Amino acid sequence: MNDRTTDATTSRASIGILGGTGPAGSGLAARLASIGHSVTIGSRSADRASATRDELAERWPDIGDLLAGGDNAAASDADIVVIATPWDGAAAVAQENADLLDGKIVISMANALVRVNKEFQPLVPPRGSVAAHVQAAVPRCRLVAAFHHLPAAELGEIDHPIDSDVLICGDDPEAVREVSAMVDGIPGCRPLDAGQLSNATAIEAFTAVLLQLNVRYKTRVAPRLTGISDAS
Amino acid sequence: MNDRTTDATTSRASIGILGGTGPAGSGLAARLASIGHSVTIGSRSADRASATRDELAERWPDIGDLLAGGDNAAASDADIVVIATPWDGAAAVAQENADLLDGKIVISMANALVRVNKEFQPLVPPRGSVAAHVQAAVPRCRLVAAFHHLPAAELGEIDHPIDSDVLICGDDPEAVREVSAMVDGIPGCRPLDAGQLSNATAIEAFTAVLLQLNVRYKTRVAPRLTGISDAS
Repeated sequence: MNDRTTDATTSRASIGILGGTGPAGSGLAARLASIGHSVTIGSRSADRASATRDELAERWPDIGDLLAGGDNAAASDADIVVIATPWDGAAAVAQENADLLDGKIVISMANALVRVNKEFQPLVPPRGSVAAHVQAAVPRCRLVAAFHHLPAAELGEIDHPIDSDVLICGDDPEAVREVSAMVDGIPGCRPLDAGQLSNATAIEAFTAVLLQLNVRYKTRVAPRLTGISDAS
Repeated sequence: MNDRTTDATTSRASIGILGGTGPAGSGLAARLASIGHSVTIGSRSADRASATRDELAERWPDIGDLLAGGDNAAASDADIVVIATPWDGAAAVAQENADLLDGKIVISMANALVRVNKEFQPLVPPRGSVAAHVQAAVPRCRLVAAFHHLPAAELGEIDHPIDSDVLICGDDPEAVREVSAMVDGIPGCRPLDAGQLSNATAIEAFTAVLLQLNVRYKTRVAPRLTGISDAS
């Protein structure tokens, strides 16, 4: 936990996480609650979402009040919506909740990867990236791609800061700025503006290399870019 | 300069750099000479290669004795050959010198990128990456992909260490190890084994994101991966 937890939470956007019961989604839910966001974990099954919510609240009692569980529609009701399903379900779940996501900041964090023997290999989704596929499925949402390179397990260990840069891209500069401000609130994370949504293709694909390094070095890597001063 | 320059250079592999007159090639030539490698800068024009060699030797007199200039065939005669041409000439120059490269470690460092307005976007070369395209053009060379993410200008500033991880991939594990040992000799660089040659696709494409960050933050970034201990 960190001192930001005591901030007035009313000034913080509420977050909904579609497909939030997996490692990345639940880890992000805990992490965002730890910095004062109200987070609704969504799932196809509201019961499963509630179970995940209860597990997190049991492990981290301090954030229990900020966590809720519900179906994906309930999670889509938040100010900012994160899509944390497996990559091949991301566009479909967005489209199912398109009316609720209309005009809203939607964060795509999935990577289209397959494991071939001992290697991870990137796939090319329709439109070149999961993020662009989601944007195409819900054309009027303000799609931002982020969080691809954060190790899911570390995301959920909220008593440890995450030492990582977070590459953020999208075609709506204001939405990118809002997500950057959110990421900036996570201790140890530095948001970096990686340009337009077309860059999501390379950002997502690069995750395969990071997973490869995890296997090779029996660790969980996260990227840091040298050469950017904190004043930038 | 660093204290390794005083090592017996006989124990160091000689390096040839095809297309070595550009910023990346000449920067790498200077950097590798600064750690004691004999480096032959190659070019389609031997005169141009000699001119680049002379410029480097004038700027850095200490490494002049280790630098030579010649045509690409002369550079292909070295122990290890780096292909530093623009990406769309890499496979062709390799094929032209295929007999000399047969059985040899060949390093591909180019990235297939185009600038679209203010953005860099990756292209997909035949076989998915420049490196795989070169491997296909010279099937019996021992292709290793490396150095994609190092900023060319910083490569050539040999009185400053480069603070960067160097992702290295290839299908010949022994060749990857040899290149890793070479990279390990460059102050500030850490070689990382990024698996098979198929990973070159994502490594090369990711360079577009790094260039994007360079434009956005008016800097030259280089990647560092957290989570890998130096003992790995």
